[in-house]
Amino acid sequence: MHVFARSSSGSVAALGEVKLIAAIRRWLGSVSPATPFGIGDDCAVLPAVSGRQLITVDPVIFGRHFDHSVPPRAVGAKLLKRNLSDLAAMGGTPTAAVLALTLDPHTCLHWLEEFYRGLAACARRHAVTVVGGDVAQSDGTVAASLTLLGKAAGPRILTRIGARIGDRICVTGSLGGSLRSGHHYRFVPRLAEGAWLARQKEVTAMLDLSDGLAKDIHALTPPGSAPNISECLLPLRRGCDTRAALSDGEDYELLFTLSQRKDFSRFTRDWQRAFPRLKVTCIGRFERKSARHQNSLNLQGYHGFEHLH
Amino acid sequence: MHVFARSSSGSVAALGEVKLIAAIRRWLGSVSPATPFGIGDDCAVLPAVSGRQLITVDPVIFGRHFDHSVPPRAVGAKLLKRNLSDLAAMGGTPTAAVLALTLDPHTCLHWLEEFYRGLAACARRHAVTVVGGDVAQSDGTVAASLTLLGKAAGPRILTRIGARIGDRICVTGSLGGSLRSGHHYRFVPRLAEGAWLARQKEVTAMLDLSDGLAKDIHALTPPGSAPNISECLLPLRRGCDTRAALSDGEDYELLFTLSQRKDFSRFTRDWQRAFPRLKVTCIGRFERKSARHQNSLNLQGYHGFEHLH
Repeated sequence: MHVFARSSSGSVAALGEVKLIAAIRRWLGSVSPATPFGIGDDCAVLPAVSGRQLITVDPVIFGRHFDHSVPPRAVGAKLLKRNLSDLAAMGGTPTAAVLALTLDPHTCLHWLEEFYRGLAACARRHAVTVVGGDVAQSDGTVAASLTLLGKAAGPRILTRIGARIGDRICVTGSLGGSLRSGHHYRFVPRLAEGAWLARQKEVTAMLDLSDGLAKDIHALTPPGSAPNISECLLPLRRGCDTRAALSDGEDYELLFTLSQRKDFSRFTRDWQRAFPRLKVTCIGRFERKSARHQNSLNLQGYHGFEHLH
Repeated sequence: MHVFARSSSGSVAALGEVKLIAAIRRWLGSVSPATPFGIGDDCAVLPAVSGRQLITVDPVIFGRHFDHSVPPRAVGAKLLKRNLSDLAAMGGTPTAAVLALTLDPHTCLHWLEEFYRGLAACARRHAVTVVGGDVAQSDGTVAASLTLLGKAAGPRILTRIGARIGDRICVTGSLGGSLRSGHHYRFVPRLAEGAWLARQKEVTAMLDLSDGLAKDIHALTPPGSAPNISECLLPLRRGCDTRAALSDGEDYELLFTLSQRKDFSRFTRDWQRAFPRLKVTCIGRFERKSARHQNSLNLQGYHGFEHLH
């Protein structure tokens, strides 16, 4: 479906702001709470939450994160799922979201309805309420930025800091070819897996792969060490090569480290019992920088996704 | 200062994403907490807060909310102040913010530094931490969307719902000519005033004037009633007429209603003691729709700011 309306009567500008906001509340349906807990006042009121919270923000922008080939429902779902994947990476579970929309006045109203219905369906599945937002105009732009709040699913929040030299490097699912295969909008955020991993005390650090393994792994690497990754262990998506697995980005899989004290076959057995349909792969270890390894993959020849270029 | 760099060496793209994020943390300085409570992980961890929270989101977009004539420090401050004004309207006090940035690769790096330094100075003044964000690229766009969290400053949160027929309609400061006078970025968000008003039990409803009185007042109007506003009572900014005061928008003043049981001269005396340098004006009352009034201003001839046109 085309993002821009063919006739002015089918555009968001033809409906006008007040009716558009009423329509958005209708499209969101049950995930849009009543005022003052939802859309309609200067701020939304969030019910009290005990303990620490998590917050993250990610956008979808026309021409960057989607184009005319992606169904609008999938764009709406992708916006939420990108943020859910960030929560998953810390062992979090979502609570509420707000959405800032920037629209060209010729944006197709039906496209926007489908976008919101896709977002709402995904929000319902994950028990997220969409409590507020903003609509602004900018010519030539169709963009949405979602801020997601959450909390720890269990007693522990996992961060990117915590891996030690000797720890195994592990990854869920397959890597590479996200854009070509449609994985970039069809992916399932690894919330249950992230929550489970945060409960395993031998898991020492975690992130979600969004810019490609070659780039993202730096954030987990302990000082004085380097990742020793075996090329032959990389879980390639069908039709993908090593470069794709390391550089393509938008994998939305969990990359985590496992203490060397943990018996790996036991870990794999427990994992398979919890998630029989999703593979987990050990692709290497963090080793002292001075160490030399014959089979180690040289990551410096690969680049991840660069957000500004 | 120009938003776009004259040479490619002075652009954000020349610096690259990793160095840009390090620079942003440096520019934010003390308002950017250490990981995992700030920028640098998949989510930011927010310390536990007791009670209900408030959340709001507002953007600044080049060509809509600012242009080359507005100093970049003022743009950064305006982004936060727009959101602070929404918090003020509910009697809230701010806690933390996240910021989603959309940048053309040619955005001037020095412009962006000034933008962040202006935002940081404003955040410091209001004890707001900037805990996370995102940087995305979109050609031709310079936009920033800020999500602000807060909590009630006192025991009560004020909403837009609560006014009754007979209530006085009051407004802080002066109205109109915001764009022309530079008020749209020089304004001071009415946080102390909003918190004080929320503590007065005779104040029944409140909002911040962003789209102009003629448009915004509908949200406060009780069912079956209409605002009876006296033109001669409108607090006009110097050089402004009635149309400007009703329609220009971006006033960022508080519009609130006061129970008819409250003695107004006593209210004004208390107000002046609390805020000797800011005037408050009663501009009319909500009256039954059937009532006819000779001096009533007909608001239907005036329009506020329309976000999509």
